[in-house]
Amino acid sequence: MTASNADIAKIVTSLTAAARRAALAMLSATTAEKNAALEEIAREIEASADFLKAENTKDLDAARASGVAAPLVERLRLTDKAVAEMVKGVRDIARLADPVSRIDREWTTEAGLRIRKVRQPIGVLLVIYESRPNVTVDSAALCLKTGNAVILRGGSEAIRSNMALADVIARALQRTKLDPAAVQVVRTPDRAVVGELLKRTGEIDVVVPRGGKELIHRVVTESHIPVVKHYEGICHVYIDDECDPALAERIAVNSKAQRPAVCNAMETLILNKSLPDKTLRSILGAMTKAGVALKGDDEARRRFPDIEPADEGSWRTEYLALICNVRMVDNVDDAIEHINRYGSRHTDAIVTTNESRARRFSEKVDSAAVMVNCSTRLHDGAQFGMGAEIGISTDKLHARGPMGLEELTIYKYVVEGAGQLRQ
Amino acid sequence: MTASNADIAKIVTSLTAAARRAALAMLSATTAEKNAALEEIAREIEASADFLKAENTKDLDAARASGVAAPLVERLRLTDKAVAEMVKGVRDIARLADPVSRIDREWTTEAGLRIRKVRQPIGVLLVIYESRPNVTVDSAALCLKTGNAVILRGGSEAIRSNMALADVIARALQRTKLDPAAVQVVRTPDRAVVGELLKRTGEIDVVVPRGGKELIHRVVTESHIPVVKHYEGICHVYIDDECDPALAERIAVNSKAQRPAVCNAMETLILNKSLPDKTLRSILGAMTKAGVALKGDDEARRRFPDIEPADEGSWRTEYLALICNVRMVDNVDDAIEHINRYGSRHTDAIVTTNESRARRFSEKVDSAAVMVNCSTRLHDGAQFGMGAEIGISTDKLHARGPMGLEELTIYKYVVEGAGQLRQ
Repeated sequence: MTASNADIAKIVTSLTAAARRAALAMLSATTAEKNAALEEIAREIEASADFLKAENTKDLDAARASGVAAPLVERLRLTDKAVAEMVKGVRDIARLADPVSRIDREWTTEAGLRIRKVRQPIGVLLVIYESRPNVTVDSAALCLKTGNAVILRGGSEAIRSNMALADVIARALQRTKLDPAAVQVVRTPDRAVVGELLKRTGEIDVVVPRGGKELIHRVVTESHIPVVKHYEGICHVYIDDECDPALAERIAVNSKAQRPAVCNAMETLILNKSLPDKTLRSILGAMTKAGVALKGDDEARRRFPDIEPADEGSWRTEYLALICNVRMVDNVDDAIEHINRYGSRHTDAIVTTNESRARRFSEKVDSAAVMVNCSTRLHDGAQFGMGAEIGISTDKLHARGPMGLEELTIYKYVVEGAGQLRQ
Repeated sequence: MTASNADIAKIVTSLTAAARRAALAMLSATTAEKNAALEEIAREIEASADFLKAENTKDLDAARASGVAAPLVERLRLTDKAVAEMVKGVRDIARLADPVSRIDREWTTEAGLRIRKVRQPIGVLLVIYESRPNVTVDSAALCLKTGNAVILRGGSEAIRSNMALADVIARALQRTKLDPAAVQVVRTPDRAVVGELLKRTGEIDVVVPRGGKELIHRVVTESHIPVVKHYEGICHVYIDDECDPALAERIAVNSKAQRPAVCNAMETLILNKSLPDKTLRSILGAMTKAGVALKGDDEARRRFPDIEPADEGSWRTEYLALICNVRMVDNVDDAIEHINRYGSRHTDAIVTTNESRARRFSEKVDSAAVMVNCSTRLHDGAQFGMGAEIGISTDKLHARGPMGLEELTIYKYVVEGAGQLRQ
């Protein structure tokens, strides 16, 4: 049975009204109160492991029954290890520094106004995702720590697991000083609920879509609410002719093959034409040995006829698999041009010993992270030492790159005067 | 003649392609080059004053011919004073510190990655406005200073003036090292151009709408591109029973009457019920004397029967005129609740000598700026000492409050390693 439009509107209003109420109450929550709530959640997940696994099994059965491929079914599975990792993740977030109430800047104007720019929760977040159930817990914990209220909408394939996690989190929050409505999971399966949520500008402050291109496209197209996108990563590694060949080889292989299915994995290897054939052969050989299928431009294929041809579409493809384009260029400027033209402004690396070329590349490549002599795979909140992240933003507003605790906050100005007026 | 959809798409692609090219080139522009370009613009405006005024006269004639009211026609007029102010504005922006390339934070991770968070231009901005022609110059200068490329779309009522300013700016930029396409004014009057521009996610990074509610509503509804809204200001002043009555009176009058037609003017005065009648009479008398018409709740009208009644809609109205609601409350918490319920999260003030109430108000009022014992009218980039601003954001992403030079930038991460890989 599908809910009517009026029902959907009512469901959404009830979600957003409760979230806004919780968000306002959270403005006065202390760090200790928030951390205590996270510890309650961690404990409740531990205590509910059997319940969570039982509900998860219903999702797995439904997925198998509807013909979902076995590896995808496995991705959904809540193993004991996955449960333990969720619990550890929540406790790790409790240990991170709280950005809320931090004073970013403080100054006094000529007129004697004392101005403080104070970090604040954003308010009400909507997280829409289609990944594994651990995202439910991660997102809830990150939002609670930053004093936000969150409305979570997971994929239908994990609906039982997500609702079970929602129950567990709600039970935990009942025992704390926080409003349990700070974490709400949408329980209505209708897709229309998402459309209605995305219209609620003023009630929801930010939408964070996490998932495939189609999901993100839908959210960007329908949303009237600000969106922070965690979009595709068409990442590049450029290997300059002035470089340490062994280091270049290791970085290329690690960037592509260490975990090909993620957004900061390399999709195109850009090689300087002046690199000796021996070096090129060694780099490409290492890639092939790591199981990577190569697609090259004309010059690459002239020199290495075994390589399959790349076409215009190849340069714009996020393979997320052991496939890699090979592009040959004359110099660093051509590499920069290729990246700014075909890349997705996510993560791009240069391997060079030439400092001025490294500087030029860092300055001119218009991406969230530019890596000099290290793997693209290191562009990540934890690797950067920022702690957990809700994703890696490819937008150029608010958050660029890892979206961690600080990026889940905004600021307000508190201005103290002594009767100052506008002249 | 209306352009066809295909024509519109072609026009828009030509604008965005040129803007993106200019934005990439601007990534290497130095502060000196940008300031020199601003000086060229200032000089060219000075030299072209007669041309600008002549073109402006055509807008004024057209406005009068189409029956636009005289005061609105006057707002459009480019007087000698208005031209001189534009020139001064551009030179002021040239003198401000350049946020681009500033290192916000720099650290080394355990793995030895040296990470710098470096301020960068956002890229391509689209500014849609319906105000006076000076916005064309202000926006162009702010965007140039921050290394952004901008596409400007002004209102039809100022189209001749805006095109003349575009010509002047283009002439000036021809003499500089910057790509003249860094500032483009949309010359096609069709409204469909805006719709098409708003779909160009990936080509335009941010849209800044400046204008009335209708314009902003349209942009928010249609845009697939991130929007920073400069929306309405339903601002409040709460006068606590513990306060200096003379100071309260001055702040109330200044907040409402100093310039009622702007977003940081007060729309509702909230009075503590325990204030003595004499104080209330004095405050409300001063408002009336300043020409303000009052609308009150039941309690206000019980004590001051002359006041017109306010209704539920009054609390949500941005009058932008010499009209003010009067609300009576029991205490600071009721004031906070009223503000968070009916306000627009723009600017809200408290007048009190009670420090703990001031702190409570600052913490719990969920607005871009909270003013303690000073006028709401001081919430402004220049008054804050931040220099010029493109507007005051009521959003809670990226920029909240004055959107000045820093808020027109974003950051990138530059990560230097020595062969680090992901384990």
